[in-house]
Amino acid sequence: MSKSSSTIPSVDWLDAVRWDSNGLVPAIAQDAATGDILMMAWMNRESLQLTADEGVAVYWSRSRGKLWRKGETSGHTQRVQEIRLDCDADVILLKIEQLGGIACHTGRRSCFFNRLDNGQWVVTDAVIKDPNTIYRPVKSQG
Amino acid sequence: MSKSSSTIPSVDWLDAVRWDSNGLVPAIAQDAATGDILMMAWMNRESLQLTADEGVAVYWSRSRGKLWRKGETSGHTQRVQEIRLDCDADVILLKIEQLGGIACHTGRRSCFFNRLDNGQWVVTDAVIKDPNTIYRPVKSQG
Repeated sequence: MSKSSSTIPSVDWLDAVRWDSNGLVPAIAQDAATGDILMMAWMNRESLQLTADEGVAVYWSRSRGKLWRKGETSGHTQRVQEIRLDCDADVILLKIEQLGGIACHTGRRSCFFNRLDNGQWVVTDAVIKDPNTIYRPVKSQG
Repeated sequence: MSKSSSTIPSVDWLDAVRWDSNGLVPAIAQDAATGDILMMAWMNRESLQLTADEGVAVYWSRSRGKLWRKGETSGHTQRVQEIRLDCDADVILLKIEQLGGIACHTGRRSCFFNRLDNGQWVVTDAVIKDPNTIYRPVKSQG
């Protein structure tokens, strides 16, 4: 990619990100069409690079300790339309198109389906699709 | 507050949050009217409790190591309309009304004003108000 006139011309854009002590930054996925916030996950340098290169969201799974190509088993890929960085350079915002209309592993559109109501978390959003029918079993190798 | 029938009836709603090893969770502030993501900051248990009790966003400043009543020096308070929790119970979403229309300390509406464009972070959003005119100097004590 060309490094012509712009904000931080001589610095690799990945170096401008303030990675935390674990080499990660939070990444918010927002539906580009509706503005709904669908999820927040984490990225390391490699996953952010891949996200930019491939145009689909690739996160870092902290629980599994590996790259997480969102949608790799569900087909619910996130096509990235825009990548933004905040003023402190430590949070990423992705504006995405959510294939299948479901971002959450529970089968809901958004992960933020619990609303605080009178001192209780109340589930507000319906399951669109039974998660048991979303995830294809991974074939055993060999 | 009454503890009647709901999702997690016998557990304090603050105990349902999965605080990280520093006792914090990320909190995303979204403009309730436009859907714009304005900022992401951090909350500890006390700040989330205060946010719910007072109806205005109170964060935890990691850099200053103290409660951060958003807008305390700028007047740009965030009135909270809704508090949400994600499926893993480790990210908070606030739907807010941003008083003054400016969430960012740079004087911009949103903190996410850097957009990745051809391998460069490009500043896309205009400064609405000079930050030097936003923050009132704190009077010295005594």
